[in-house]
This record gives sequence, C-alpha cells and structure tokens, in this order.
Amino acid sequence: MSAATPTPQDSGLPPPPTTAPSTSSPTPNLPTTTAPSKPTILHLGDDIRWNHTLYAELQSHFHIERSHSMDREAFKAALRDRRWGDFVGMYRPFWNTGGEMGNWDRELIELLPGSCRIYASAGAGFDWVDTRTMAEFGIIYCNSAPACTESVADAAILLIITTFRAIVWSFLGARSCSPSQFHAANQNIAAVTHNPQNHVLGVVGFGKIGYRIAQKASRAFDMRIWYHDVVRMDREREESVGARFCETLEELVGGADCVVLATPFNGEVLLSTEQFGWFKRGSRLVNIARGKLVDEEALVRALDEGIVSSAGLDVHANEPYVNEKLAKRDNVMVLSHTAGASVESHIGFERLGIENLLGFLHHGTGAVTPVNLQWLKAKEESADA
Amino acid sequence: MSAATPTPQDSGLPPPPTTAPSTSSPTPNLPTTTAPSKPTILHLGDDIRWNHTLYAELQSHFHIERSHSMDREAFKAALRDRRWGDFVGMYRPFWNTGGEMGNWDRELIELLPGSCRIYASAGAGFDWVDTRTMAEFGIIYCNSAPACTESVADAAILLIITTFRAIVWSFLGARSCSPSQFHAANQNIAAVTHNPQNHVLGVVGFGKIGYRIAQKASRAFDMRIWYHDVVRMDREREESVGARFCETLEELVGGADCVVLATPFNGEVLLSTEQFGWFKRGSRLVNIARGKLVDEEALVRALDEGIVSSAGLDVHANEPYVNEKLAKRDNVMVLSHTAGASVESHIGFERLGIENLLGFLHHGTGAVTPVNLQWLKAKEESADA
Repeated sequence: MSAATPTPQDSGLPPPPTTAPSTSSPTPNLPTTTAPSKPTILHLGDDIRWNHTLYAELQSHFHIERSHSMDREAFKAALRDRRWGDFVGMYRPFWNTGGEMGNWDRELIELLPGSCRIYASAGAGFDWVDTRTMAEFGIIYCNSAPACTESVADAAILLIITTFRAIVWSFLGARSCSPSQFHAANQNIAAVTHNPQNHVLGVVGFGKIGYRIAQKASRAFDMRIWYHDVVRMDREREESVGARFCETLEELVGGADCVVLATPFNGEVLLSTEQFGWFKRGSRLVNIARGKLVDEEALVRALDEGIVSSAGLDVHANEPYVNEKLAKRDNVMVLSHTAGASVESHIGFERLGIENLLGFLHHGTGAVTPVNLQWLKAKEESADA
Repeated sequence: MSAATPTPQDSGLPPPPTTAPSTSSPTPNLPTTTAPSKPTILHLGDDIRWNHTLYAELQSHFHIERSHSMDREAFKAALRDRRWGDFVGMYRPFWNTGGEMGNWDRELIELLPGSCRIYASAGAGFDWVDTRTMAEFGIIYCNSAPACTESVADAAILLIITTFRAIVWSFLGARSCSPSQFHAANQNIAAVTHNPQNHVLGVVGFGKIGYRIAQKASRAFDMRIWYHDVVRMDREREESVGARFCETLEELVGGADCVVLATPFNGEVLLSTEQFGWFKRGSRLVNIARGKLVDEEALVRALDEGIVSSAGLDVHANEPYVNEKLAKRDNVMVLSHTAGASVESHIGFERLGIENLLGFLHHGTGAVTPVNLQWLKAKEESADA
C-alpha cells in the first residue's frame, strides 16, 4: 500500500446527523423504484461480508454493477466506455480492496458519468480523494470514520500506556529469551517509567476519535485532558472529560506529558524541529492520525536529545516503508497502520457505506457522513448568485 | 533474578485498614522514644529515594542499622553474630535490592533475634517468604501491594488490548522495516481482530488488582466483567463494575473472551491441559500474577490448537528464562515481569513500608498491609488455650 491508501483516520467532523432528515444535501432527481429500470450503483472491490440484509435492501432499490479490483488504466477505460452505464453512486465496502485505480484526482473524477452524485467509501482517511473536485462535479464523498472510532481510540490508549511504561523495552527483553536482557529490563524499567495517572494528555484534534481517546484516558487512567483544535468545543463536551482548551499548539505541547495526534492531514507537516522545541522535556508522542503530520527526522533528533522520551506510531510518512531510525529504537513502538483495523470496524464501514447510499439516494434523509458538503454548498451558492 | 524474587503481584487481600487503629496485631512491648536507646530497625538493600520526611520520622524514633546487599552466607553469619543487635523490625524499600540473601525460609527466620516482630517489604508478591513460619516466630510480614495496583492494572489493560488487536503482529511487521511484512500486517489484521468492547473479561482473583482491572475494562472499554474468586464480593463492589460472579473456574473460562489472572500463587498450577479444555474456543489469556499459575507447555498446545487465540504474559514459570515456544510467536506478548514497575509504584512501596513500621511499632495503629495475621492469630489462640 502507499501512504495514499485509505485507512482509518479521524475526519475531525462533528457527529453526523443520523436520525433527523438532512436538508443540506442536494437530492438528485432519480427514477423511483416503481420505474421499470432501477438506478445503478457501482460497487468497487470485494463482495460485502456481513450486512447482508441491508445490502439486500440496497439491491431491491438499485441495480448493482461491479468493478471488482481493476487497475487504473483498466478502470479509466471502463469509465470512458460507460461500461457500467449512468450509475448514480459508488460504494466501496472495504478499505483494502476497491482502491486499485489509485488516487481519485481530477483525471479520474472527470471520467465519471454526470449522473454520479455520491461516493460512499469504507475507512476514515480520505487523503487519496480530491473531495473538493468531487464537489465541483456535484458528487458527495462520504467516509465512514465513526465505524472505526472505537478501534482507533483503543490503539491510541495502548500506545499511550506503551510510551509511559517502556513496554517495547520490556517486550524485547523477554522476547529475546536472554536471561540477562530479561533481568536488565526487569530491574531498570521501574526507575524510568510512570503511570499515566494524573499526567496531562494533550490531544491534537478533538473530533470523534480525539474525544473518545480523552474519554478512555480520563475514565480509566485518571489522565488530565488538554486539547487543541481549530475550534473550541462546547462546554458540555469539555466538561464531560474535564478537558482544558489550548488556543495554540505551542501551549498544548508545552504542558502535555503525552501528545496524541488525532487530526486530519491537510497537506502540512504539523510537528517538525520548531514544534518539538516547544515540547515539555521528556514528553511522549502518539500518532494514530497520519504519518505525514510528523517530520520523522525531526522526531529522531527529538528522541536523541531526550525532548521526546518515547513514541508510539501507528502511521508513517512513507508507508509501507517505516523509518528505520524510529523502528529500531527500544523506546518507540511502530505499528503497521492497524489502529482502525478490526472486524467491528469493517462491519461498521460496510454498513455505514450502505446507509449513506440509502439515506441520500433513496430515503431522502441525506448522507450520514459526508465530508465535502462545505464545497458542495459553496458551489450551489455560487450557482444561485 | 529467580522466580522467587519478589515482584509486584496482587495479594488477593481485602483493602487494609488504614485509619482505624488495629486491635488484631500483637503490639510488642518496646522501649519508648524517651528512653536513652531507641529500638533498632534493620534496613535491607538500598537507601530510600523519595520519602525523606517520612524516613526522617522513622529515624527520630528508631536506630537504623543497614545490611545493604549481603549474600545469603554473609547475611546468615551476620545474624548469628548479632551484628545488628536486637532489632525489632526489618525494612526493605525496594524489590530489586535487599533480597540477595534469597528466600526467607525457616533456616533464615530462626536466625532472627527474638526481638524482631515485623518485616515490612516493598513489592506485592511474597512467594519468596514463608510468612507462616514468620507468624510462628511472632513476626508480622507486610507487603506493599496497594502501591502497585495502578501500574499492574494498566499493564493488564495493555495486554488485554494486545491480545484482542494483534498488536505483536502489527508491531513486528512495522519494526521489520520490510514493506511486504508491513503490508501483510496492514491488510490481514482487521479480519482477525476485535475490539474489547462488549466482550467478556473473565477475571480470576477479584482483589485490589483484579477489581481495578475490571474498573478500567468496564469504564473505558465497555467490557462485560465476570470474575471468579474463593469468596463472592459484596453486591456494591460487583455492581460498580457490573460484575457477574462465577462459582467455578470452569464456568468463568467457558464464557470469557479473555481470561486475566490476578490471583496469588498458592503452590498449585491453576491452568493446565484440563482447564484449557474448558476455555471458550479462541479466547485470550493475560497473566499479570505469577508465571507458575500456568503450565506453559499446556498453553503452547492450546495456542497451537486455537483454543487460545492470543496471550499476554508479564510473568513466566521460570524467570529470568522465558519459554521460547511462547516468546517467538506473533500472537503472544511476553514482558519482563514489569507490570508493577513504575516510579509511582516504587514511591508507594517505600512509603508503605515505613508506614507499616511506624503504625505497628510506634503509633500503635497496627500494620497497614500485613499478610500473615491469620496465622499470628491462630498462634495466639492456641497459646491462650
């Protein structure tokens, strides 16, 4: 996989409307199900596996075409040939299949039929989709971030404990099966490790995932929660986890004993040498968001200098390549970008994708988890003007 | 270190009386502090590091002798020579020093001066002390288990998440710096991993540590708590974590999605082939108690057969040796017996040891965390008869 492969990430969105009908999404004028021919949906990638009843409902209202796992050139050719007709939406139930055509950039988007109004995809991250250009073409892009919130938050908690408690050292010491390495870990770890309890967790990005991490960290580990985000959350949300808002990233990292990144990648590195210079000395870093948020060479230096005492990294700047200077340390846990990976996440991705399609294309209740409405609205407004 | 080295473990005791004066401990008739010579305490192992004010209080009431880190023969010789006089108590502030004389068996205990009435030690485990024989000699043994409860429970949570989420596989895949291994972990882990949420955590031993694990698992991970112990807890304690009591170990392991051992080692293996046969298929095992509770060869077979899908083992049957057939699997996390290891645990051990000495020997409020009162009482009663 490349770094552009969609995998779980916090969208940073507020909770989507799930019950009230949405009036904000443009609803296309579609043939009704009583018409002789049902509208078509293009299903990318593998068969669904779990939500069979819901998929049957989709099939009862729509004709399903399948592209399976075509490479980019084959996929482009099929779009040019209108092989799947004038489909009204696309569905991708898994993040690990159905992405073989590569990034959804303008080149691909402009080949879509004008009838296409929605792409409902598995996964949380969408740095492989130009959702703004999709909006320009009148297409709503829906991720399914909420389905992996629990998995990502659990992985973040694991990495937080790991950074406080020298788990990598303890693991490698025991795994070596060397009595002396076991002994060294056993005897020396206590003097340099701490309980998360009463320490400050600095959450960057207080969307669904950041908030869920804060809930877990405060409820079970008595951590004090600080957060930084582009907007301040409402008081109820803050108070529910005892969170303190930091106006600036500098304020947050200057006081946090562990910084956890739970914010989308907007194309800019968030933590480099300058920002590590703001860190409280000996702090810890956990990244379950996107690898490119962190300048890895700057992190290596911060670890060398003791500015950062330990790190837990689910994501990497150049996946599937992992920075060896990070991976081989005994105070860094690197994971294979699996923070959101669980059967429960997959079931939820699959389900939420169908719910987005049914809500928007059939029930008239709108898409559940759209991520590019702001640009669709802007387009409508400029069209109205 | 050997398996007999004291390291953190749940004592399985109810919370000790910390405020009300204890009337159950025999209080020795000691010289008061106004007498010209203060009673002596033998301080084993290293200097204290954190609780200097409290130690100064101890010094104001007692004369402190030091043995530092003598080996068994030297220590025995010193006891025979009465090198430290008629000391009234012993203090061991750290679990990793002051144990060089080896197991406290009858051979060592009968060399103690008749004046010695208390041994207050760091750590939670005490399978290296014959506390029953100590009681026979009128000596209270105090561990300091409550000081490491938080650390051990956090480590248990880490291992629980690890077993549900294939963290070892994900870690080794990324740490290899091999794109293909990263890719394999990234693509395949989701299909075989689960969120702890809504799964049953089966806690064996519902003392302070088992209960704290249950609190964390229910509050932050929405796990359903089952437990098994020799006695049923009161309703309030059960309801606070929604715990269901299992009369038998068979009932517990038959329904648990993850079994966590938090019970003392009483000399008998708890889990061997017969007990693994009772496990719910595909369950997980976490051991933060004592390695000898588990027949490791039986666990290897249970893993081979898929009865146990994953394990997290802080402790091992033959430390510092770790079973290679467990250590080298990618579905087992072995740690170097560091579940209780943290600066906070050490500070607490050091403090609680002094509090035990002051409470029992000076304030008359009794020992805070004695573990062998049942045998001391039995001795008193038989003496009364």
